[in-house]
Amino acid sequence: MKCRKCEQTAVINMRQHKLALCKEHYPAWIVEQTQRFIEKYRMFTQDQRVLVAVSGGKDSLSLWDILWQLGYQADGLYIGLGIDEGLGYSDESHRLAEQFAAQRGLHLRVVDVAETYGETIPQMAERTTRGKGRPCAVCGLTKRHVMNRIARDEGYDVLVTGHNLDDEAAVLFANTLNWATGYLLRQGPVLEARQGMARKAKPLCRFYEREMTAYALVRGIEYIYDECPHAVGSKTIYYKEMLNKLEVDRPGAKLSFYLSFLQARENGLFVASSENDSQTGASGEALHTCPSCGQPTTAPGECAFCRMVLQVREN
Amino acid sequence: MKCRKCEQTAVINMRQHKLALCKEHYPAWIVEQTQRFIEKYRMFTQDQRVLVAVSGGKDSLSLWDILWQLGYQADGLYIGLGIDEGLGYSDESHRLAEQFAAQRGLHLRVVDVAETYGETIPQMAERTTRGKGRPCAVCGLTKRHVMNRIARDEGYDVLVTGHNLDDEAAVLFANTLNWATGYLLRQGPVLEARQGMARKAKPLCRFYEREMTAYALVRGIEYIYDECPHAVGSKTIYYKEMLNKLEVDRPGAKLSFYLSFLQARENGLFVASSENDSQTGASGEALHTCPSCGQPTTAPGECAFCRMVLQVREN
Repeated sequence: MKCRKCEQTAVINMRQHKLALCKEHYPAWIVEQTQRFIEKYRMFTQDQRVLVAVSGGKDSLSLWDILWQLGYQADGLYIGLGIDEGLGYSDESHRLAEQFAAQRGLHLRVVDVAETYGETIPQMAERTTRGKGRPCAVCGLTKRHVMNRIARDEGYDVLVTGHNLDDEAAVLFANTLNWATGYLLRQGPVLEARQGMARKAKPLCRFYEREMTAYALVRGIEYIYDECPHAVGSKTIYYKEMLNKLEVDRPGAKLSFYLSFLQARENGLFVASSENDSQTGASGEALHTCPSCGQPTTAPGECAFCRMVLQVREN
Repeated sequence: MKCRKCEQTAVINMRQHKLALCKEHYPAWIVEQTQRFIEKYRMFTQDQRVLVAVSGGKDSLSLWDILWQLGYQADGLYIGLGIDEGLGYSDESHRLAEQFAAQRGLHLRVVDVAETYGETIPQMAERTTRGKGRPCAVCGLTKRHVMNRIARDEGYDVLVTGHNLDDEAAVLFANTLNWATGYLLRQGPVLEARQGMARKAKPLCRFYEREMTAYALVRGIEYIYDECPHAVGSKTIYYKEMLNKLEVDRPGAKLSFYLSFLQARENGLFVASSENDSQTGASGEALHTCPSCGQPTTAPGECAFCRMVLQVREN
């Protein structure tokens, strides 16, 4: 198959866009499209400071690479989670993130969870009921806290993550299967700042996972190939597989699911009532401020993250 | 496995309800539950006249059987579609519906499409673009028209159909995948009368398909086993299979998908704006009245059904 824009061999064929592109025109197209989405969803501007959450995976490194090419003031944030599992998972992710930043002369801010809070994620998970069997809940809680803290304390205008369409569609699918009102009202390319929470944006939300993989490969970005060893068997992966099956039978199904959701919301399908207000937690209750860290929490008193860290310190 | 209510062997185990019942207690439970749903969703009362759309399949005959046991004034409506395909599909359905009514001394109203409108469904489908390849769109259009006409002209208070949970979940799933706002606002156990359209209710909407099969078998109801030969490969069957896979992995998933949708709507998740008002067609436009039949239509002039019948008569 030939590139739509020149005579070279295409490296990717995007059936849902009826578009095949070569190894020069494909990454250029991704960069242009990202700029289009940044503007369309009013994510951030050239004079704002952007913090990119970098995991060492293909999506976050590609995102940082794109923003760098577009000339945005984008620093990286790497959070050392201490996940090893005999694979040196976190060490290798950290090495790749540092290497990426050094190659481009970019600033990578590093927060090591064990150094900062006393224990690694798997260690913390062992002492909480949240973590029973699987540290993912503790990991998510910690990453949200740290990303938010750095974005706020170090004066960034927006925190951006590398969530791609497959990620977003899977989360939307999960939230739709049980009609999780609070989450449905909030999911989207941009989450506005609220009550001590940084503004968040997802510039890659309209790209398929395979498009991001192709981008990273064509750009020669070295990234960590493996999924986190703890993610195996997760609900999100289960829903991704269901949506992949649907996509095979109906090319474009994932994109249409996500975009028609955004469109329906824009057309006013949903209403934020007292039951499901956007200034509340996902299950509808009013938000409080944690007296220790100043971040929002659904119950009065210390937030779940600060309570967990307190437990670590007391032991 | 034993029946929850006595010592007999259970004929069904409903994992989502953690309930196993025997061949006496199971049908009694289905009848009680149906009465509960009729009241909960304010479907109809004992002094109202109910028209049951009867196809000869397990769901509609079981529904009529349940309403008969509960003492409702329920007549049947059988629509002869003229689907044969070498299987005598419509003839056999008609025979079973007549046999069912005769056994219980119930009144079955019959409308034969070819006699009334000049051609069978497969014949009509051949002359319209709606029918290209598959007569299902023509069939749906015709059934909606006839059910509505009989319900209205013969003074019924409500038209009831045998849609079960699997049917409802599959339609909800399809409408959610493309966020079909108009349909999402309207789907539910009851659709109120509007602009020349009869009131509609679905008393079986909370029963799984397998529960209805078990009911028909235990009650010795003779019904047509085969799906309509034209339904093979339909979207609805495709979505049913996806949801069946989900149900195997997460028992109760279908029920929870449907009920959490109803709950979210009741909590005010959706808003009927001018874009998606409930007094409009599914895509948002205002409804008109067909000058020939008096039923609502999305465009001024004859409705799609009357235009189709006119074509048949002119040829």
